[in-house]
Amino acid sequence: MKSQRTITRLRRIEGQVRGITKMLEEDRYCIDILHQMQAVKAALARAESEILKDHASHCVEDAIRSGNSEEQRGKVAELVDLFDKLKR
Amino acid sequence: MKSQRTITRLRRIEGQVRGITKMLEEDRYCIDILHQMQAVKAALARAESEILKDHASHCVEDAIRSGNSEEQRGKVAELVDLFDKLKR
Amino acid sequence: MKSQRTITRLRRIEGQVRGITKMLEEDRYCIDILHQMQAVKAALARAESEILKDHASHCVEDAIRSGNSEEQRGKVAELVDLFDKLKR
Amino acid sequence: MKSQRTITRLRRIEGQVRGITKMLEEDRYCIDILHQMQAVKAALARAESEILKDHASHCVEDAIRSGNSEEQRGKVAELVDLFDKLKR
Repeated sequence: MKSQRTITRLRRIEGQVRGITKMLEEDRYCIDILHQMQAVKAALARAESEILKDHASHCVEDAIRSGNSEEQRGKVAELVDLFDKLKR
Repeated sequence: MKSQRTITRLRRIEGQVRGITKMLEEDRYCIDILHQMQAVKAALARAESEILKDHASHCVEDAIRSGNSEEQRGKVAELVDLFDKLKR
Repeated sequence: MKSQRTITRLRRIEGQVRGITKMLEEDRYCIDILHQMQAVKAALARAESEILKDHASHCVEDAIRSGNSEEQRGKVAELVDLFDKLKR
Repeated sequence: MKSQRTITRLRRIEGQVRGITKMLEEDRYCIDILHQMQAVKAALARAESEILKDHASHCVEDAIRSGNSEEQRGKVAELVDLFDKLKR
């Protein structure tokens, strides 16, 4: 089970994005909208960090406990691949 | 008026975030969720770019046409301030 | 004239990059090297911010004082273009 | 041994940073300098990616082969910690 805290966080982000759509529809000032978007990006980064830690302590931990080298290599390859996407 | 294209884009991002919440609730694989989050961040970056261009061709353009130096300085200060937030 | 502080900062970054090359040659631990690279990226971001502020208070300020709308539009277009590159 | 390719890449980045210092000293146009800094950041990102892959195929691979769970957990914790720093 994913943490309830992360689910709550994502619901809040969804609300923030809806708020930005409303700001656009009400023709609010662009710079205020762009600052709101920075807040959404920061909130997404915090959620990412939680999900990754959850992944490390569950899925990756299972692979470590299994003692199965192939499974472990698979987990490492996934993390390296994700890291590559992240930097963009 | 903000462009309808940007509003549509934000609505789609809202749907993507809702999809991620659902993935979390259904306990989907963390790495798949993290890849979805990269897609949301890329979509937000495209929306930001559109909003900024809209800002340049409307609000900043108005300040240029006004010939009012103080107003122009204000617009530049806002952009520099936003740039500083962006890099985090 | 660019600020001496920024020039000093860039010389320090050059030294940090040389330090990373040395760490690679001495086959130091990858994770330590990667943390050093984060430090370089943070230092570059601070230098960028200084250069942009310098730009706003000199070149952009000159365009504002000139009262030349075409020149002002050119400065805005350059900033928007830079902003687009930044998000990668 | 770290790859010679990565060492060469870092030497080239060092040269690029020295070039930026020179541009500052010669009072070159700020926007041109800022574009050069984007090029350095992109080159650093490519080097990071190479070093991380090197890390995965050597240090992490050794931990997998060792069959030592504590060592494996240590490697995962380091990657999660690095990921957290990266997003800034």
